[in-house]
Amino acid sequence: MWQLYQFPLCPFSRKVRLLMSEKGVGYELWRENPWEGRDEFLGRNPAGRVPMLHDPDKKLTLCDSRAICEYFEETSEKPQMIPGNASARAEVRRLVSLFDENFYEDVSGPLLLEKMKKRVILRQPPDSRALRQAMKLAHEHLYYVDYLLDRRPWLAGATMSLADIAAAAHVSVADYLGGIDWAGHDQSRSWYAVMKSRPSFRPLLAERQDGIQPPSHYGDVDG
Amino acid sequence: MWQLYQFPLCPFSRKVRLLMSEKGVGYELWRENPWEGRDEFLGRNPAGRVPMLHDPDKKLTLCDSRAICEYFEETSEKPQMIPGNASARAEVRRLVSLFDENFYEDVSGPLLLEKMKKRVILRQPPDSRALRQAMKLAHEHLYYVDYLLDRRPWLAGATMSLADIAAAAHVSVADYLGGIDWAGHDQSRSWYAVMKSRPSFRPLLAERQDGIQPPSHYGDVDG
Repeated sequence: MWQLYQFPLCPFSRKVRLLMSEKGVGYELWRENPWEGRDEFLGRNPAGRVPMLHDPDKKLTLCDSRAICEYFEETSEKPQMIPGNASARAEVRRLVSLFDENFYEDVSGPLLLEKMKKRVILRQPPDSRALRQAMKLAHEHLYYVDYLLDRRPWLAGATMSLADIAAAAHVSVADYLGGIDWAGHDQSRSWYAVMKSRPSFRPLLAERQDGIQPPSHYGDVDG
Repeated sequence: MWQLYQFPLCPFSRKVRLLMSEKGVGYELWRENPWEGRDEFLGRNPAGRVPMLHDPDKKLTLCDSRAICEYFEETSEKPQMIPGNASARAEVRRLVSLFDENFYEDVSGPLLLEKMKKRVILRQPPDSRALRQAMKLAHEHLYYVDYLLDRRPWLAGATMSLADIAAAAHVSVADYLGGIDWAGHDQSRSWYAVMKSRPSFRPLLAERQDGIQPPSHYGDVDG
């Protein structure tokens, strides 16, 4: 059984969990706070980031969320989550990167810093200017999601893909932390309601990060 | 013919250029300074980052350096640059991420900020504390490269892979900017000398970023 090292509000770990659930790959959760720099964790994973997957029977460790997703795309049963020809697959990966890099840098990363790390680790008050900026940039990202969904049923094309999973993982963390205002984003809101209603999403919506409560609409699968 | 949008010291563009050259895929260079936020560039590439590849004949645009590398791994001739079974491929991708994320955040990113962006764009003096920190962290990364090369002929295993290409791309940018002290890193230095001597590397070593000169050893292919 895979051991998945993570903390509840890590968007990259959420992406991997959603992918594994969609593909029917079992795992057990192991709590890892990467900011604690635990020696055994760093020994296996010099990057010092979660998620990390470890299989004690196979003596195999996988690090980096995109490398992990590619691994399961190569080794697991359908449904394919990076589907199509090479250019369709490049479009899925472009969008995964847009959320893992740009959305994280603009929205989910700053929200995690201001609302989780400053509270739990640094014991500092949040910077309200940074929070406003993250919420403003969240709108810009959601406008782009609306734009894509005006043209395609799912973010990268005709079927659900890793692009939807990555986007929903980041949006769910931002939503948990009160950073998403859904007003004016009907397409994005409907798409996210569909994602939330999938069985793979249920365990994520039920989890809580220590001492931080989400807004009341967060776990509501009717949007 | 592929049009590759980039600026000379972008490590992600260097990675893609090395991969394309190793695979014998032709391209022409188009200069793009992403910090200028050119409308036509952002219209094709909402992430606003280089490299971007565009093929006007195929009407195809590829964004995100990892998505681009996967595209050429799927569509191009040998040599394979993400070789082996799924776990070997995961190891290549783990190391690509270690350089694209950790090394960039610790070393090549801060050096680019302090020595290029502050000079060319922000018109500010560099922060000498940040420069010292980047050079210190470069040592730690090179110790890990030494460690890997004590156990394997190439970074990810028995053959040259995208891991070597990504690492050499980032190291070359750090070296250009005077951020690498090779003392005490004999394994890394020998490995990098081999990388520099490849025909794919020559065009990179001959290029100059406007107004910034590299140290004299930078282009020396004998190490």
